[in-house]
Amino acid sequence: MTTYRLNTHSFLTTLAFLSFVLFLLSPSVLADTLIVKKQRLTVKDFQTTLGVVLPEIQIGWEAYGTLNDDKSNAILISHYFLGTSHAAGKYAKSDKHAGYWDAIIGPGKAIDTNKYYVISTDILGNTNVKDPNVFTTGPASINPATNKAYGLSFPVLTILDMVNAEKELITSLGISTLYATAGMSQGALQSLEWASTYPDMVKKVIAVCAIAEADSLVIADLENWAMPIKNDPKWNKGDYYESDEPINGLTNSMQVIVKAVYHGYIFDRRFKNKMINDDAPKKSILNEFKVNEWIAEYAVYRASKADANHILYYIRANQLFRLGNKKTLAEGIAPIKAKLLLLPSKNDALFALYHMKSFYTQLLIQKKDVTYDEIEGPWGHLDGIYAIATKSELIRKFLDD
Amino acid sequence: MTTYRLNTHSFLTTLAFLSFVLFLLSPSVLADTLIVKKQRLTVKDFQTTLGVVLPEIQIGWEAYGTLNDDKSNAILISHYFLGTSHAAGKYAKSDKHAGYWDAIIGPGKAIDTNKYYVISTDILGNTNVKDPNVFTTGPASINPATNKAYGLSFPVLTILDMVNAEKELITSLGISTLYATAGMSQGALQSLEWASTYPDMVKKVIAVCAIAEADSLVIADLENWAMPIKNDPKWNKGDYYESDEPINGLTNSMQVIVKAVYHGYIFDRRFKNKMINDDAPKKSILNEFKVNEWIAEYAVYRASKADANHILYYIRANQLFRLGNKKTLAEGIAPIKAKLLLLPSKNDALFALYHMKSFYTQLLIQKKDVTYDEIEGPWGHLDGIYAIATKSELIRKFLDD
Repeated sequence: MTTYRLNTHSFLTTLAFLSFVLFLLSPSVLADTLIVKKQRLTVKDFQTTLGVVLPEIQIGWEAYGTLNDDKSNAILISHYFLGTSHAAGKYAKSDKHAGYWDAIIGPGKAIDTNKYYVISTDILGNTNVKDPNVFTTGPASINPATNKAYGLSFPVLTILDMVNAEKELITSLGISTLYATAGMSQGALQSLEWASTYPDMVKKVIAVCAIAEADSLVIADLENWAMPIKNDPKWNKGDYYESDEPINGLTNSMQVIVKAVYHGYIFDRRFKNKMINDDAPKKSILNEFKVNEWIAEYAVYRASKADANHILYYIRANQLFRLGNKKTLAEGIAPIKAKLLLLPSKNDALFALYHMKSFYTQLLIQKKDVTYDEIEGPWGHLDGIYAIATKSELIRKFLDD
Repeated sequence: MTTYRLNTHSFLTTLAFLSFVLFLLSPSVLADTLIVKKQRLTVKDFQTTLGVVLPEIQIGWEAYGTLNDDKSNAILISHYFLGTSHAAGKYAKSDKHAGYWDAIIGPGKAIDTNKYYVISTDILGNTNVKDPNVFTTGPASINPATNKAYGLSFPVLTILDMVNAEKELITSLGISTLYATAGMSQGALQSLEWASTYPDMVKKVIAVCAIAEADSLVIADLENWAMPIKNDPKWNKGDYYESDEPINGLTNSMQVIVKAVYHGYIFDRRFKNKMINDDAPKKSILNEFKVNEWIAEYAVYRASKADANHILYYIRANQLFRLGNKKTLAEGIAPIKAKLLLLPSKNDALFALYHMKSFYTQLLIQKKDVTYDEIEGPWGHLDGIYAIATKSELIRKFLDD
């Protein structure tokens, strides 16, 4: 496109190629496929941070590796906004895709399941309520008091609620200290929240593509995700479980979400040539550009797994986030004892780099033990998944030291 | 919020204060209010670039200063996406606000109306069709062939069509060469397009917060602006002029647009404290954050002036933009003879800095006479308006040299 961009592109192409070579050479490819089993925990009388007791919550979870005798080798992975517990391995050998962080979790990989017991849960309020492998509780769940779906009577959730649900699982496994918490995006918010709220329970934190608090821009950005749902008449203020779902609003919301987590580099790589030779958008306002057609199609797929209210609850949890839930971020940082590894994505268009740069500075001021490194790649926010293997050695060293 | 942010904030506060002092000392404050008169030109048989002849178009326009005898001192200002011709002065002394670039256009100001004859038009397809001061033609206009509104039968517009409409006005005034073209955002796209398509007609170009071509990210970003309109059932594929307008969709579109042109710095400055003390969003998904309430309110105001189809046509014109309308940007750059001044906004979240950095490099490669400087401010894209006075001396020098 331009000299500047071509240089960036060729750098990124080289980077991608090198990553691929590294990937081929890595033990992951040589190892057998990790086969994992999805499990389920039911917790009674779960207290939410905003003051409501839920009679029961469901937590889907899976684990990789073996818990050692003194239960000191557990690493807890928290998933991103649209993710599930499926961080690594496959449920069956025939599965098309492995878990989203399979490049760094497994035998001999950066988060080495020969050493660590890696646990990953469906986060409380998980958006993919129509995925048969997901077990969660949220506004789409049946309220035992009424035998109807909660809808908006479900309490507003916070990132700390999600952490507390994970804590129930950890405790049920007899684990009192986590060797590490790690997560991507919303998952990273939880990984950090663990270290602030339960400083004696976490030794290390790996926060990928995180923010330490939602600023006004994040709050406004995320409202663009919510708006299509709220504007669908079928949403009906969240009360749609006995009628038609707001599937149009949900699909449009997914379009906004999908676009937000990608960077233009990857779109341009895929669609630029198609765009130049495409006369359809010149002919009528009704004709779409190829890139938008792709986003719309992918959004239909994502919407088929999800529930609209769950999306709204996750948006709100992110909007409300301030690490440690104090009046200032500085107060939320103060209790942290864990060693921290911050891995923002350089081209992140959702959680822009200034968030982690600023957080890093604040951590240094409070003399915390923190390492900061930027992930480079063409995907933007999703480089926290697709380019995470470029940080394998750093992650390995951070965990093993 | 954080030390890093506080430093940025205090830097920006200082900058804003200095700008204000400069503003107070500038001749603009000392000078009388410039009173301007809105005028109207009707052009018959206007040929659009995509092949349709419009029987008639209306062009609202205004001018500041005096055209010299050899008609060599004209500067053409093109307005931004939601703008009008009203770039400077007031229509009446009692008007609350002056034109959007009044800080740099007027007697003794950077674009000095004692020297230059400054012309500004309502751009073809202007969005503010309900503003009584705006004269334009677009999908909301009556098609003389049917005596009904064009709707989507109106041809897709390009930035070059907008330039060609301006050219009709320039020609009608007997002007054959523009001393300069200048514009902000979509206006800057036009200012640049002038120099590529009519290289012998333009001596200098000032492009503020521009792009040189829409990449896939811009195309996808702008689709978020279009989606709320297209999803409003009342939009009815653009055919709503004899029924209810899609006012909800239009208002939601304005919410997305308003958010896109601001940066988090200014939102945080206005809303951070309110946010921290605001418990409403914790209580129910139905309660909004203050920043989103403000955006929603402002969107209602903007929607009251606008037409939904016009918004969609402007979105499409931006999505289709590639300077010079050749297969590559390099070919579009080649014909340019004008001296160029590129003024991107450092915190622009809409037209990110990489666009102008890359364009600057390409211009240098083709040995064009170009100056590049970044506007710093807290508003993001809108720093091209609100912080433009910080570049007054640079603009003055660029024009006078």
